Amino acid sequence: MAYELYYWTGIQGRGEYVRLALEEAGADYVDVARERGDRAIADFSRTVATPSFAPPFLRDGDVVVGQTAAILLYLGGRLGLAPAEERLKLWTHQIQLTIADFVLEAHDVHHPVGAEKYYEEQKPEARRRAGEFREARVPKFLTWFETILERNPAGDAFLVGDSLTYADLSLFQVMSGLDYGFPRLMARVGGGYPKVRALVARIAERPRIKVYLASDRRLPNSEDDLFRHYPELDGAA
Amino acid sequence: MAYELYYWTGIQGRGEYVRLALEEAGADYVDVARERGDRAIADFSRTVATPSFAPPFLRDGDVVVGQTAAILLYLGGRLGLAPAEERLKLWTHQIQLTIADFVLEAHDVHHPVGAEKYYEEQKPEARRRAGEFREARVPKFLTWFETILERNPAGDAFLVGDSLTYADLSLFQVMSGLDYGFPRLMARVGGGYPKVRALVARIAERPRIKVYLASDRRLPNSEDDLFRHYPELDGAA
Repeated sequence: MAYELYYWTGIQGRGEYVRLALEEAGADYVDVARERGDRAIADFSRTVATPSFAPPFLRDGDVVVGQTAAILLYLGGRLGLAPAEERLKLWTHQIQLTIADFVLEAHDVHHPVGAEKYYEEQKPEARRRAGEFREARVPKFLTWFETILERNPAGDAFLVGDSLTYADLSLFQVMSGLDYGFPRLMARVGGGYPKVRALVARIAERPRIKVYLASDRRLPNSEDDLFRHYPELDGAA
Repeated sequence: MAYELYYWTGIQGRGEYVRLALEEAGADYVDVARERGDRAIADFSRTVATPSFAPPFLRDGDVVVGQTAAILLYLGGRLGLAPAEERLKLWTHQIQLTIADFVLEAHDVHHPVGAEKYYEEQKPEARRRAGEFREARVPKFLTWFETILERNPAGDAFLVGDSLTYADLSLFQVMSGLDYGFPRLMARVGGGYPKVRALVARIAERPRIKVYLASDRRLPNSEDDLFRHYPELDGAA
């Protein structure tokens, strides 16, 4: 039976981390809300014994799992996108959780006062938060990914071990979001993370990912999404 | 061999979610930085192949795992604080990840502009964010916990199944933080979540938790911690 992914229509959002794994694996899945509308999300949540706090969540027969990183933990072994060894499986998940933290910080740059108010209602606060994000947080996270690649005993081709995991795909998504949202910043600092850049470039060339990115299943970036391009938050050239 | 927990000294912080599980289980553990100083955290991270982005992290022989929820995922089965069934094990982890999101939001109330600046440098922004936290986010999270207890097919004594998990202990810690940081808010809305309140009260009475809470291993709440009591962020009485 096909996996059922429940996530908002109209944006890449957190659903995209799951989609990239499903697409890379060539898995059979239904993007439920895109077929039946956003209402399908609440309709399903109303009755289930284990309702997710927020989308995305995934249904696989009797299993319903929410939280992006937990979905990928569940799918990893099934899609051939996680190491078999328990210790490395956990390490892959740990990296994914840190990516989730990074993504939330990228979102909070334009919503420092809270997700329930529009960006236009919190522009001065966003400008302050963006400074710290650019100068301290992005370098700290990217240095961490570069360090992981450097220290990987199996080489620097992948974040974990010597084959692709869902964490590599998610890193691709984060870098793609940063390039979109912060082009000036990334032009300035992006070269400082050559192993991250090389990994991300290789992922963009993977056959199934390439097909996916060119398909209409891959939505364009936008200012409704997690990563947004507001030039005033991108700092000086 | 004893588990080694690496976390900052001086605060409960995210380390406390791990401590509560270790204490409830009566596990043998060393709180490394409290014995050897905060420097032990960086010293260890400098050399390990799988460095955590931030504390807490746990060492168990060859295994090193960071991210609070991943640590608890690892410890859950070993400490008898997670269900045996795979589906429920994942559900427990999903709840824990949502608790982690809630804790981060509680922190960001006093640090909306970023963690690298003092609260005193972002008081007006904090006041704005606190409004949304009190009116929208706290009710949304607490309603979710109450709903989980209502829908648990095994009854409302625990969040998952019919026995204690680390997620119950973490919910206790969150409620304890909210009561400390937002006494006026909790006096106003706390009664609206009777199943959550009853669970938390039972946890405080568990023999090992009771001993732990009275010990000097349990640090007091403070304005250096994740949950802080700033009356100006607590709203009207």
